[in-house]
Amino acid sequence: MNRSEKKNYRLCIRYDETRYYGWEHQPDTDMTIQGKVEQVLARMLELPGGEVPEVIGAGRTDAGVHAENMIANVWMETELDEAGIRDYLNRYLPEDICVKEVSVAGERFHSRYNAIGKTYCYTLYVGDTKPVFDRKYVWQPEGKPDAEAMRQAALLLVGEHDFASFCGNAKMKKSTVRRLDSIEIRQQGDYLKLTYHGSGFLQYMVRILTGTLVEVGLGKRSPESMTELLEAKDRKAAGATAPAKGLCMMAVDYH
Amino acid sequence: MNRSEKKNYRLCIRYDETRYYGWEHQPDTDMTIQGKVEQVLARMLELPGGEVPEVIGAGRTDAGVHAENMIANVWMETELDEAGIRDYLNRYLPEDICVKEVSVAGERFHSRYNAIGKTYCYTLYVGDTKPVFDRKYVWQPEGKPDAEAMRQAALLLVGEHDFASFCGNAKMKKSTVRRLDSIEIRQQGDYLKLTYHGSGFLQYMVRILTGTLVEVGLGKRSPESMTELLEAKDRKAAGATAPAKGLCMMAVDYH
Repeated sequence: MNRSEKKNYRLCIRYDETRYYGWEHQPDTDMTIQGKVEQVLARMLELPGGEVPEVIGAGRTDAGVHAENMIANVWMETELDEAGIRDYLNRYLPEDICVKEVSVAGERFHSRYNAIGKTYCYTLYVGDTKPVFDRKYVWQPEGKPDAEAMRQAALLLVGEHDFASFCGNAKMKKSTVRRLDSIEIRQQGDYLKLTYHGSGFLQYMVRILTGTLVEVGLGKRSPESMTELLEAKDRKAAGATAPAKGLCMMAVDYH
Repeated sequence: MNRSEKKNYRLCIRYDETRYYGWEHQPDTDMTIQGKVEQVLARMLELPGGEVPEVIGAGRTDAGVHAENMIANVWMETELDEAGIRDYLNRYLPEDICVKEVSVAGERFHSRYNAIGKTYCYTLYVGDTKPVFDRKYVWQPEGKPDAEAMRQAALLLVGEHDFASFCGNAKMKKSTVRRLDSIEIRQQGDYLKLTYHGSGFLQYMVRILTGTLVEVGLGKRSPESMTELLEAKDRKAAGATAPAKGLCMMAVDYH
């Protein structure tokens, strides 16, 4: 099939990652979000010879990291309209993956290369008891972090910096410089929500930032120490990586 | 131990019922909410000879029916204060059961006999796609119910009536007359929330009311037909029993 007969579709996907091994294909398992969506599309398109369309995600979320609005794109040819594709996907996808929207994108749209910003939200449960209905989507740290100290520390992390200290990939060869536009820390009842917006994030970066900010909130580090932490450019200088389950991809920005 | 040495404690409990067989003890399983709470209390109290304190619940929710605020009471003697009891319970209870509050109640307090009203909420997902993060706490009916038709029908159900048509227990020998104070039907984004308040509810009553109202919303019954439905006093005249998972006990009223 000639690529020119195909259209470039944009998908917005919500998923609960609890049962999966991340967005991206993994050897030895079909339990990835990308794999599940591609499987259902292959069934829908009835491609010959086991051919599978490639669904490109804006970000390759790690195992356990949820998404409210993952953006993806896929080139394919189908007689179904956008709502028809969406409904087909939702019928055959498992109950923890939902395609919220399907639309035809321009030919040049690439969900990953065209992304100019991303928003992630990390949710902490900081009440006196424990979360129940949302227990798979929040992290309950030991102790009650002081949100104000965390906000002071966050101010020092915002901006363009070399985030090597907050990078989970020790073998990272490319630049670890990123622009972190904002970290918003809001208390909502028994929850503390940390919303990160930036041009792009290194592996585990949001989780290491969160783990470090929680240590500041618990008095184990001073807000001021963030400056030297950035300067250290050493993963060992930062705090623990917060658990994946509290993290959710909220939005991807495009021009 | 003399009862006079014990105090009467009031517990407020939140639980996700997905994994359990209802509130009340069942033969051949220890997977009940009552059983789990009693098990941890027995451990805490270190009672001799396998003695277990009886935790009395305000309502005996069915398998699959969740609770935001189940009220229970238990007579026991312990040196722990209220917060200490709460924290002990939360440490040893599974992650889907949480004791929100423990307080000392008057000697005459009985969570079930003293209850004068109850509030249940039934949540329907009525969006175009499907629920993900809350999929275990909502029901997605086939089709989009018309909330206004449901409200008209609800008005005819409110009041003191013989609710025999809405009683799941065919062998019910006691009176099936109940006072239903209100049914509030609110659309919130992709959700339709039905909040029921009444003096007491028969077995499956809220779920049969919900199933019937959804049939009205889908045009399968007229709102006006509720009057004859009540008069029929026959379970077969009402609609299907809505799934347990959409139902949650929200509050219990006392004088």
